[in-house]
Order: sequence, then C-alpha cells, then structure tokens
Amino acid sequence: MVQIEPLVTELTPLYGDRITTNPTICEHHGKDESWHPMQAPDAVCFPATTEEVAAAVKACAEHRIPIIPFGAGSNVEGQVIAVQGGLCIDLSRMQTIIRVSPEDMDCTVEAGVTRSQLNSYLRETGLQFPIDPGADASLGGMAATRASGTNAVCYGTMRENVLSLRVVLPSGEIIETGGRARKSSAGYDLTHLMVGSEGTLGIITEVTLKLHPRPEAVSAARVQFDSVEAAANAVIETLQCAIPVARIELLDAAQIAAINAYSKTSFAEMPTLFVEFIGSPSSVQEQAELFGTICSQHECSAFDWTADSDERSQMWKARHDAAYAAGAIRPGCSAVATDVCVPISRLAECIGATRADADQHCKFPTMLAGHVGDGNFHFVYVVDPNKPDEVRVMHECHERLIERVLAMGGTCTGEHGIGLGKQKYMLSEFGAATLGAMQAIKTALDPHGIMNPGKKLPDPTTYH
Amino acid sequence: MVQIEPLVTELTPLYGDRITTNPTICEHHGKDESWHPMQAPDAVCFPATTEEVAAAVKACAEHRIPIIPFGAGSNVEGQVIAVQGGLCIDLSRMQTIIRVSPEDMDCTVEAGVTRSQLNSYLRETGLQFPIDPGADASLGGMAATRASGTNAVCYGTMRENVLSLRVVLPSGEIIETGGRARKSSAGYDLTHLMVGSEGTLGIITEVTLKLHPRPEAVSAARVQFDSVEAAANAVIETLQCAIPVARIELLDAAQIAAINAYSKTSFAEMPTLFVEFIGSPSSVQEQAELFGTICSQHECSAFDWTADSDERSQMWKARHDAAYAAGAIRPGCSAVATDVCVPISRLAECIGATRADADQHCKFPTMLAGHVGDGNFHFVYVVDPNKPDEVRVMHECHERLIERVLAMGGTCTGEHGIGLGKQKYMLSEFGAATLGAMQAIKTALDPHGIMNPGKKLPDPTTYH
Repeated sequence: MVQIEPLVTELTPLYGDRITTNPTICEHHGKDESWHPMQAPDAVCFPATTEEVAAAVKACAEHRIPIIPFGAGSNVEGQVIAVQGGLCIDLSRMQTIIRVSPEDMDCTVEAGVTRSQLNSYLRETGLQFPIDPGADASLGGMAATRASGTNAVCYGTMRENVLSLRVVLPSGEIIETGGRARKSSAGYDLTHLMVGSEGTLGIITEVTLKLHPRPEAVSAARVQFDSVEAAANAVIETLQCAIPVARIELLDAAQIAAINAYSKTSFAEMPTLFVEFIGSPSSVQEQAELFGTICSQHECSAFDWTADSDERSQMWKARHDAAYAAGAIRPGCSAVATDVCVPISRLAECIGATRADADQHCKFPTMLAGHVGDGNFHFVYVVDPNKPDEVRVMHECHERLIERVLAMGGTCTGEHGIGLGKQKYMLSEFGAATLGAMQAIKTALDPHGIMNPGKKLPDPTTYH
Repeated sequence: MVQIEPLVTELTPLYGDRITTNPTICEHHGKDESWHPMQAPDAVCFPATTEEVAAAVKACAEHRIPIIPFGAGSNVEGQVIAVQGGLCIDLSRMQTIIRVSPEDMDCTVEAGVTRSQLNSYLRETGLQFPIDPGADASLGGMAATRASGTNAVCYGTMRENVLSLRVVLPSGEIIETGGRARKSSAGYDLTHLMVGSEGTLGIITEVTLKLHPRPEAVSAARVQFDSVEAAANAVIETLQCAIPVARIELLDAAQIAAINAYSKTSFAEMPTLFVEFIGSPSSVQEQAELFGTICSQHECSAFDWTADSDERSQMWKARHDAAYAAGAIRPGCSAVATDVCVPISRLAECIGATRADADQHCKFPTMLAGHVGDGNFHFVYVVDPNKPDEVRVMHECHERLIERVLAMGGTCTGEHGIGLGKQKYMLSEFGAATLGAMQAIKTALDPHGIMNPGKKLPDPTTYH
C-alpha cells in the first residue's frame, strides 16, 4: 500500500495544481490500449521540464514510491498500468521542439512531442521523421517501447533512429547518453540500453532523432495473390533483389474484409501486399517495374497502382486503421493483436502454421496484418472477453504462436514491447543467464526497484 | 603482481599447448597498432570454442586474474595492451563460419573470423559484409570496438550491423544477447551494450551479422577542389539531396602527396573527394550526374571518373593505405591518427580550425583523411617519438582538437574506441552522472574488475 500523501505534500510547492490524486485523472492514467484491466496510480504529476521530472523522481526515491512514466497512453502491452500504484509522471506537457538542424538532418525534442506534431513542424524543411507506429504516439514513448511500424523495412525502428537521449535515472540524476555525432566509439551505448527499456531504467525526457529527406517521388501498389505463401515468397525475393521498398505490408483476406467494412474501401478480399516505393521519379519507376516482374513470377492475380497521392493516403490510412477495423467486426469484442517477428525465410511457414492452428481451434474471427519486410506480423484474435472459453482458446493459440516463433529464432515482440503481457515468454526467449545479466543492470541502476515496477523483466525468483 | 602459474596449471588439462607463458608470444600479444608501448600479458591461451573461453574466464574469476580479449591486434587505442598483466585470450583460432542464410541476409560467425575471410566465403551468394575499417580485423574485435570505415555513410557501423552476440560474461556464464529477428522490442538491448564495450563487459565469441546484396553497378570518382571547405560543403549538399553515396572520403593535399609517394599513384595533390555510387546501372548514373552538378556549384577543379574496376580497386587500396602512407613519409616516425566525429554542419569549420592550429604549432607533417559523410575525420600528426618537443606539441594539438569537437556536440572517437588513450576525455564528453551509470553497469557485470581492466572507463576516483 503506497503512502502517497507525504509525497504529494512534498511536491506541491513545485508542481502546484500539476500534481493530483483526482480519481478520474488517476484512472485515465491506469489504462492503455491493451486488453489488460485498468489499475490506477495513486497520483499523477505533469512536469514541464526535465528538472521537474528529476525532482519528482528524487522524492519518489526517498519515499520508495513506484514511478510510472506516461506518454500518449497508446502502448498496447500494459506498460503504463500502475500494478503497484505510485506516482504516474505524465510527460505530455513537455512538448517543446528544442532544435531542428536541417544541415545535420537531426533534431532534439521533449519526450511529449508526438510524431505528427514533429512532422507538421518539419514540413517546410523538406525533412521528415518517418517512423510510424500508426497511433500518434509521443516520441519519448516510442523510444521507450522501441517502436516502429510500416516503414521500418526502409528506415529502421526507433533503435536505428534515436541518436541520443536525456534521461532521469532512478536516483534523480540527469544524464545525456551521447552527443550529436552520427557515429561514436566512446562510452557504453546507454542510448540503446534506454531505447526499449519501457520506463524501467529511467525516464526519457528529451530525444535526439535522425531525420530523413522527404522523398522526391512516391508510388504505391496493392497486389493480390492466391495465397499468403505466394505473397510472402514475393516479399523475400524483392528484398533479395535489393529493391529498396519503403513499405511492404501483407494482409490476409479476412483483414481486408474487416478494412473494407470499417474504412468503406472496396479492396479485393484476397491476400494482398500493400507496397510503397520512394526515390527519384526514374528510380521509383525502375523499382516498381522490377517488383511487378517478381510478383508476376509468384502468380499475383491483380496489381493496382495508386500513383495519386489522395488514393495513397486513403490506402495507408486504411492499413493503419486495421487494428480498429478488426475490433469493429464484432461489437463488444476485443481485437487482441499478437506481435511476433521471425527470420524472413520462416515467414510463410510461420504464418501458415498459425493460420492452420487458428482454423482448427478458433470459433471466433482471426486475421493477419504484417510488416513482412522485417518478418514482423500481427495475428489478431477477435474475442468476446465475457466468454471464458474464447479467452482461453485465444491464450492457448498465442502460447503456441510464441513457441513456434522462438523455435524459428524469432522474438515474442517485434515492436509492442513486453510490458505486463509478455514477461512469461522472456525466459524462453533469452534463457536464465541473459535474464540474469539484464536484472543485474536493472538492480545497478534502480536498486530500490521503483522505476515502473512489475514491467519488462520477469520476477528473478521465477527463473533463478 | 599476477600469480599466473596456478591458473596455467589449472587450465593446462583443457588447453594443452594452447596456453603458454612463452615471452615472445606474450610480448606479441601486448602490442597493437597504436603508439602505446607494449605491455605483455603473463600468459596467452588460444581457445577453440566458446566453452573453452568460458572455462578460462571462470578460472580467472576464481583467481582474480585480469583477462584481455585479443582478436587480430589491429586496434589502434591500446585496447589489447596488458596494463595489469594477466591472461590474454586470443580468439584468432575461432574461425568457423557457423551459418549463412542467404534468404535472411544474415550469418553467424565465430569471433576470430576476419572480414576478408567472410567476404571470400560469401562470394558465391551475391551477398557481402561491407563494413570495412581498412585493416583485416576480426569480426569479434570489430564488434567490440564498434568499428566502421569508409562505407558507414551507406551501411552504418558495427552498431547497425550486429544482430546479436554470444558472449562469455565475467562470471564465465555464456549468454546470447538476442535472436535472429530483424527487429525486436523484447529485453534490454544487451547486443548494443556489448558492441563497443572493448572487452570490458565480456568476451564476444560469436557474432550474428546482417549481410547486404552486392551492388549491381558501382561507379567511383575523384573530385578535386580548391579548398577543404568547398569539398566539405559539397558533401553536405550531397547528403541533403539524399544521394545515396556508398562512400565519400575527403583527403587533403598533404595526404594525397603521401599516398602518391607510398602507393605510386599520381593523383592531383589538392583537396580531393573519393566517392563511390552503387545501385542499378541507371540509378548509379543518375546519382553521379546529380553529384557532378553539386560539385560544379562548389567549384570543383577536376572530376575523374574511374568506372574500371581495377582502377577503382587501386583507388580504394590507396585510400585504405593512407595511414601507412602517412607514416612512411618520415622514416622512424609515428603517424598518430586522431579520430573525431562532429555534426556534419560543423565539419568544414572544425577541419579549418584544426588545420590552422597545426600550421601554427606543428613543425612536423600533418594531414587529413576523413569519412566525411558521417562527420568523422582523422587528422594525422607525423611525429618523431624521440623528440619530446614534437610529442608534446602533438598532444597539445590533440587536446585542443578534442575540446573543439566536444564544443561542437561531437565525440572524441568516431570508430577507434577509447582503449587507453582517450579515457581522459570521457568526463568532458559524458559528464560524471553518465560515467557513473556506465561504471554501475560495469560493476554489476564485472564485480571483481577482471575484464580488460584499465580500459574504456576512467578510474571513478577521478570524477566522483
């Protein structure tokens, strides 16, 4: 049981009405976009500066009060749920774009800046920050989750696009993990240690990001195949030919049907690749022609170019709304999106086995949407949370999916993170010695275990 | 004083004649390619497997004996010098290419495999491992140093190209830092923590690497400019136009003269960019034309295309031998190569100030070679080690160079690492709080401080 009052009293002179125990606000901060039930923090504060974050963390360290960093709340594995109560530190008011350097193609922003806010700001510069998880997440949260999305095949994930971070450590100390040099062999790579740490090693308050030129020309296509396997094989060959696709997304017939219903589109309801090419006008044309040849060899049944920018936006909007579309086909139900990633050579086999398993066991709808250029896919189970049988079958299918993926050298999460929901797979994925090393680092930086407790790493007593 | 005999006695049943205290072998392992004086380990062992490495590390942990991992010995900041004696673990016999997966464009190799060995093996596959530090370094050593070279502007450094590692921790435990998925949000990023740790957190025994398709077409050019500044500005504009250069190297007139003398070339002795374009034949042509236009706008004085593959190889060979060429202009002297990296917008200014400083203070030759697409450059001082005045002036110039670079948001090492030589700059680059976090991680993983002691991190008593 957290004694929150002394902490609130101590922080009120600094925070004023920006710290609160109001139950509505606390409950709002105890929930994300996942299926995990809400658990509210005892208080929420809204810092305006890194120094204010540090003051709150120092006070929590003294009082041994759990801290939960909160960005946009768009995470999907329970990362912000206050399983031990405590103080939620909401960074959404830290929205300053501190610096954009067009010559260096980089920028520094406060953690609460969202990706759409940054891209609006960049419009005049000819630059963009392309990483796009669908939701309008905060850039601090995206770094903390090691997020990515449809265009990771081209631009990489947050792992490849964060140059350095400003972080408040669990002690309240403020550190900079690196400078602005594009490469460095100095120091241990604390930047990458913090990227993907899901708020368990510190609170990211500023993010220095690589930016990318907006492409001169863009062209997109939808290609239908008779089978998911044929589509996956076309993807592998495309990558091996070094065609620099900007996005290459696979959706199965069920997912396309859900999208058509939700987004009022009329895409052919077959296994489909959504593809985008970028570059100079001539290189885009060359890529597209080569890709067309590969698809023909894999017996694609139709090929729709959408050179028009509005039509392209509509197509990607529909793709990004796929998760909502999945949920909407069965009102009152939850679309539970898995998030696995396998070596690309195993992709068709893994998807095929997962589909067969679902066909055999699931009496509820299931569908597939995948960032297949990376081997990352979301198999989605649309279950009624009030039917324990459905929930049990879904969990059993998910367990088998993870076992299948790990046996193929893959990972239990490509981009959503571990949070609460996937800790049970960490031992299988990493083994006890590797988890022990992670836990040693956690304990070294957060000896009192106050930083987002109960997330990311499983309890050491379960594997030692 | 290390008591090596009990350790050797303990390991001899396992290692046989692959562990030795032979002074010649020990001295050979106490030196790298840097200016730092040789300090020999007390013994050297040559493991054949990860398990043998683990056995040696466990024994050293029990006996509290320092361990120095050794790859090809081509490092340049004293990383392998046995400053506290101990056991050198030479990984050069671990040369198995364990797995190449052309479909996934990745491979797993033992740490002693060199980059040229891997590329020879890959020749039939159409794939390559492009990271190229010049020397034929071992891939384990390249990972440990976070190495790169001329084509980092296109392919990134070891940071971007290591997918996962097998590592023997200072406890002797063996861990795998990750799987083969192209992206993952599981776990803390131990891969990147180990990449660049210079053997101070564990011994890398296997490396899983991204591979890249060999380009269909390659074209290279040498472009001469009237000034280094004009060349640097042409580089910035090239990057901003998103021309995907594969390499873009800047050499000043003095460096070109040294190369001509050493490599029997006859390049015009002016500030010169060495550039390479890769892709499809038409995209290479398009890139080259656009680049030509940019260079003309920056008043390049000559432009030599070398489409011929032999001529291109000769050009890059000459570039890679630049460090040896620098040393050769003054027999008996040392070419001390600095290795800084700044945001590209500050590159021309930083090089200009460094040149002015050298012209004012150095009575000995100095020259410049830089991987300027990343903002990384090597300013080289050719000094007589027997003239204390020269050595002092060189060190003073180097100190001022680092100060200048850090004030610009840069780093004291782009690709050579910290080793022995650059620990004194770590506090200025990172600050005490960040160094404290690095030291906490070091202590958590290596509580007895046996893993490559005296390297990378400065003594905590110097900053706390």
